Amino acid sequence: MIATSRRSWVATANAPDSDFPLQNLPYGVFATPGTAPRCGVAIGDQIVDLAACEAVGFLDAGGAFAASALNAFMAQGPAVWERVRARLTDLLAEDGGNRDLPLFPMVGATLHLPITVSEYTDFYASRNHAFNVGALFRGPENALPLQWTHMPIGYNGRASSVVVSGTPVRRPMGQLRGEDGPRWAASARLDLELELGAIVGQPSTGRVSVAEAEAMIFGYVLLNDWSARDIQAWEYQPLGPFQAKAFATTISPWVVTRAALEPFRRAGAPRENPLLPYLAEARPGLYDLDLSWSLNGEVMARVNYAVMYYSSAQQLAHHTSSGCPMRIGDLLGSGTISGPARDQTGALLEMTEGGKFPVETARGRRTFLEDGDSVTLEGHSQGPGYRIGFGRCEGTILPAE
Amino acid sequence: MIATSRRSWVATANAPDSDFPLQNLPYGVFATPGTAPRCGVAIGDQIVDLAACEAVGFLDAGGAFAASALNAFMAQGPAVWERVRARLTDLLAEDGGNRDLPLFPMVGATLHLPITVSEYTDFYASRNHAFNVGALFRGPENALPLQWTHMPIGYNGRASSVVVSGTPVRRPMGQLRGEDGPRWAASARLDLELELGAIVGQPSTGRVSVAEAEAMIFGYVLLNDWSARDIQAWEYQPLGPFQAKAFATTISPWVVTRAALEPFRRAGAPRENPLLPYLAEARPGLYDLDLSWSLNGEVMARVNYAVMYYSSAQQLAHHTSSGCPMRIGDLLGSGTISGPARDQTGALLEMTEGGKFPVETARGRRTFLEDGDSVTLEGHSQGPGYRIGFGRCEGTILPAE
Repeated sequence: MIATSRRSWVATANAPDSDFPLQNLPYGVFATPGTAPRCGVAIGDQIVDLAACEAVGFLDAGGAFAASALNAFMAQGPAVWERVRARLTDLLAEDGGNRDLPLFPMVGATLHLPITVSEYTDFYASRNHAFNVGALFRGPENALPLQWTHMPIGYNGRASSVVVSGTPVRRPMGQLRGEDGPRWAASARLDLELELGAIVGQPSTGRVSVAEAEAMIFGYVLLNDWSARDIQAWEYQPLGPFQAKAFATTISPWVVTRAALEPFRRAGAPRENPLLPYLAEARPGLYDLDLSWSLNGEVMARVNYAVMYYSSAQQLAHHTSSGCPMRIGDLLGSGTISGPARDQTGALLEMTEGGKFPVETARGRRTFLEDGDSVTLEGHSQGPGYRIGFGRCEGTILPAE
Repeated sequence: MIATSRRSWVATANAPDSDFPLQNLPYGVFATPGTAPRCGVAIGDQIVDLAACEAVGFLDAGGAFAASALNAFMAQGPAVWERVRARLTDLLAEDGGNRDLPLFPMVGATLHLPITVSEYTDFYASRNHAFNVGALFRGPENALPLQWTHMPIGYNGRASSVVVSGTPVRRPMGQLRGEDGPRWAASARLDLELELGAIVGQPSTGRVSVAEAEAMIFGYVLLNDWSARDIQAWEYQPLGPFQAKAFATTISPWVVTRAALEPFRRAGAPRENPLLPYLAEARPGLYDLDLSWSLNGEVMARVNYAVMYYSSAQQLAHHTSSGCPMRIGDLLGSGTISGPARDQTGALLEMTEGGKFPVETARGRRTFLEDGDSVTLEGHSQGPGYRIGFGRCEGTILPAE
């Protein structure tokens, strides 16, 4: 365990509101003008060039950091993850660190998608969200599916549509329900979904336990599962959402490691019924992680990740329950994170009750997202004198074409 | 267009019941003992070693045939596909062919998964199947979803679970609905699904028309989307099938090109209502392709692919309708192919009406698949004096563990 009092010689990392103190060390992929994308780690307002560190012998990760995605590093496994984290902590510490590390200011760098996404699965693990959305789509009496308290319900999403924060999001066209059959139109009910994304860093070929699943998770990102609610309502029965969630899913560029979040473990809400043994969790699997989303810079909702009913480790264990093989670079969305109150909801669908109750914002009244709207997710776990932050996960809506 | 009368100097290719005549030339990936997997083409009972052909200058595909998957070849695009097909036709023709081509007997080769599957999407495009299964899951009055005649309904499947013919299939464990909450058990309702799989050979980044979608399709395989009906029934609402279809999907090893199937174009059933323009097809998009499935060597059902309501090109166009990016190696399952009669059904769920009417087989009565059962899909389009066959797509059930 890293002592909470350690400071970095990178001064900006020591500010109490820095997302990237010495205790965090999230991994990403960056490029500076005229150079190729490579792996880096965030510290304060700087990026450590990990490829350059390896080249000069400051670090050893088998050459994996020269790649344009973290997959090769993840493939080296938990012992290497731990060793590199310890080494980076030493190199960046105020006491005894190495001030010759190759640093680049984050402000001048381009941040790329941090991983090659193998497959993307999205879950549905906030009880509030499941009930609220279920009530809107199917009425309150059919809101919560029967199996909801027994298994983490999920569906396969579309990996090819995952983009990094800052990528504009084009409003989708699609089939919408019309008066007299369907019509072809731009989605008029474009929404966000505030989620946490877990990144699978080790493969599996058979069923794994929740403890084994947790050990496979390399880290976490913020994730916005953009959703076209009108396309979804018309298409989603009986096989689930398809084009409504296939145009873009935005993730934050920095992968916060499981190791960095370890001090913030927290249990979720009490269970309504016992889980089957394959989903039993020996220790709390959620994190005390404060999340928020903003519309055009104005905070719309705040919610803690620990409202969730299933952890990423439980979701991953369930994902393997049939024997489904998992691969390095698989991305698991937590499902929309919503608390019970309106200002804790992770989607406009819930906040406006399906558009019935618009919200007032500085840029006008909203039911769903308008062209030009920008949505930003943020989040951090608060430690004593430092915080483990995720940076920003942002996307701006472009008009349909 | 290749003249139908041309014969090959590989004598076994000229038998009227050979799946692999000169007119077919399906691509695959094979290895012989002690050698690495590489690309090949099937002719009669032989495999042409395409990597060796390139090495000695008989062919030019940019070195793509040395790879252990067809993706690199597909990436070269339709002009190269056409040129290589024409060249192979000349090399293998009885008149003027090249008898020095490096051939290996198929019987001594191991056939590998022919492509690296980027993502796997499964559709639901047989009206009979959609109605039959819908009636079993939701009752006849809710059987056919409202949008079914307006759009090709699909869901994202799990690419990591796609295996090549011959790979044993482990019966999955899972959550099943019990008397008093769910129970953890081996699936007792394990089923097959007879499908055709379309392989995307060119990428797209925005919406594409049906004609453009068709041009992106490299070829087709037989596809068995193994399904655990009891896991499916408990898990699938509201987000679709997940673990019920995540343990294995088997495809045939030979990719029959779109070019080889071109002479067998056929229109489907009349439309019940006009389609929106983005799904309009200028020419018939299905094929006159006779399919069958066998249980332990006994043919259980025969059905023609032209019963389908949507073509693969329409499915692919719909897949891009929101702007969803497609990639080389994406695999699109047609959906279970079923005709109206019991002996035309592509799944035991339909054939036995959910297990109510068992079928008698040489190995005993069946409602669903038992351990040790072997399912084989076969199919071909019948031309004058030759047939374009797919070979076999087979899997045998291993007991749960």
